Amino acid sequence: MAHQLIMDQFLPRFSNPALERMDDSAVLDMKGCRLAFTTDSYVVDPPFFPGGDIGRLAVCGTVNDLSMSGARPLYLSLSVIIEEGFPLRELRTIIGSIQRAAEEAEVLIVTGDTKVVEKGGADKIFLNTAGIGILQDEHIFISGNNAQVGDQLILSGSIGDHGIAVISEREGFSLGGNIESDVAPLNRLVQDMLQASLNLHALRDPTRGGLATTLNEIAAQSRVGFMIEESKIPIREPVQGACELLGLDPLYLANEGKLVAVVERQAASLVLQAMKRNPLGKDAEIIGEVVKDPKGMVLLKTKIGGTRVVDMLIGEALPRIC
Amino acid sequence: MAHQLIMDQFLPRFSNPALERMDDSAVLDMKGCRLAFTTDSYVVDPPFFPGGDIGRLAVCGTVNDLSMSGARPLYLSLSVIIEEGFPLRELRTIIGSIQRAAEEAEVLIVTGDTKVVEKGGADKIFLNTAGIGILQDEHIFISGNNAQVGDQLILSGSIGDHGIAVISEREGFSLGGNIESDVAPLNRLVQDMLQASLNLHALRDPTRGGLATTLNEIAAQSRVGFMIEESKIPIREPVQGACELLGLDPLYLANEGKLVAVVERQAASLVLQAMKRNPLGKDAEIIGEVVKDPKGMVLLKTKIGGTRVVDMLIGEALPRIC
Repeated sequence: MAHQLIMDQFLPRFSNPALERMDDSAVLDMKGCRLAFTTDSYVVDPPFFPGGDIGRLAVCGTVNDLSMSGARPLYLSLSVIIEEGFPLRELRTIIGSIQRAAEEAEVLIVTGDTKVVEKGGADKIFLNTAGIGILQDEHIFISGNNAQVGDQLILSGSIGDHGIAVISEREGFSLGGNIESDVAPLNRLVQDMLQASLNLHALRDPTRGGLATTLNEIAAQSRVGFMIEESKIPIREPVQGACELLGLDPLYLANEGKLVAVVERQAASLVLQAMKRNPLGKDAEIIGEVVKDPKGMVLLKTKIGGTRVVDMLIGEALPRIC
Repeated sequence: MAHQLIMDQFLPRFSNPALERMDDSAVLDMKGCRLAFTTDSYVVDPPFFPGGDIGRLAVCGTVNDLSMSGARPLYLSLSVIIEEGFPLRELRTIIGSIQRAAEEAEVLIVTGDTKVVEKGGADKIFLNTAGIGILQDEHIFISGNNAQVGDQLILSGSIGDHGIAVISEREGFSLGGNIESDVAPLNRLVQDMLQASLNLHALRDPTRGGLATTLNEIAAQSRVGFMIEESKIPIREPVQGACELLGLDPLYLANEGKLVAVVERQAASLVLQAMKRNPLGKDAEIIGEVVKDPKGMVLLKTKIGGTRVVDMLIGEALPRIC
């Protein structure tokens, strides 16, 4: 529904080149200085979940959106909407998480705003962060529009951890195993990748809607196809188990510390090696490649040898996951 | 409460020079290019009110915060949190207002985000805008910290219109008269003022908490006093009438299309003339001046000849006014 609203209501009204690229960040030229600019609101329910909280999420999410343009994130804004009666102790914990995540990502929170609404006017706490980053090399041109036939597709690690962590906390499931959100700032991983090669064509973090949605978006924007192999996609065993139990497809689950890179074929192994040396990319895998046809579609070679179409997610299966 | 939260919880944790200036925008140096960066969330209730709506407010509020640093606003982000079931027709109207206000202020909306929460998870619609502007002249140093003894205080027009417009709509009062919000983008007015003189020391738009709160903030930040004259402060007659009826003090009512300028004495009349030539500054008045003592305080010469202290607003008399 959010996707449809954006496509139908917002995009046609605010037409301009930066917005129409539909990337995670807008890239702006300001007096010869190329900046990335992005925003996200965070409404995750519950605000505390295994492996993180809404504060860590709000910093990492925006740092990651900036990073997906190849920018180095520098400055964040922070806006807080609090429901009256939200415990001050929990607010302090969230602020502490924001502070630690900002330090980890080496970004400064330079401007902010706080609104308090009456009880029932909002559900606990919502955060918004916007961010500014700088593109340090003039040869960086990373966009969901740039995937080219033959490019290799690299996934930085296991999928589904964030989605399952939030759902299990929300629903009060005890899923055994040790399922924690992967929420983490990816800016240094991206810098490592750019050091290995500037031939990164597209980068995106598969958050809401998961890997399947992200790949469909890039395939549509670049007018290419993707062929991916199920056996190459890392899924941790407890996440796989939880998905089977709950009838969820891990391809559609949100991640908050993973990225997908579309990399020129010749550069792929160098980029992969650089990723594996970073703790946040140690499980990185080449999971497929860009093909000419069918355009705008994602095909999956299943473990049992078949091929199936991986559709865009219709409807929002899991609301308030981020 | 929001003010106290910011002072107690947020500021001590995110200490950095840009944030500690406590201005409406952070001013950032990026490769020799001075940028202003700001954010605000908008939770006004009701989202439609005489003279505007939450969409126009979200554009103007952030354009104005950028303008108060002397920057020329260029780019906005837009993030929307919508309650499930919010009428699509009203959403379209709000998007139309955003579009028109952005055109009026000559800013581009370049990045965005939409979250839908379940019914009861948020009250109708909340918006967040962040903005980037550029400081075009290297001699612009405008900050709430810069007010100096002898500076003249200029108010751009009548106060209280926005506050009364929202309250009357929310409470269903019919106050007679024609009370509309003053919500408007002030960037061109500020550019006109800067053309007249670069000796603007402080600029601020008296939104939440009104003129009284804004002046108290600047007085505290600059460690000076303000002496203002009640008779010089423009208040439209229906607003004055509504205040008397409702027991409200117009000095504490929110404005969304007004600014207060602290201007070097010699430059004041030139700046005032420039303001009066702009439709948004036609009722501008010199309402007082900066005095040495009492530091951090605002004194009002009343119409009947007395002098009283104008305090900081304690508690939030009017919630969800912006």
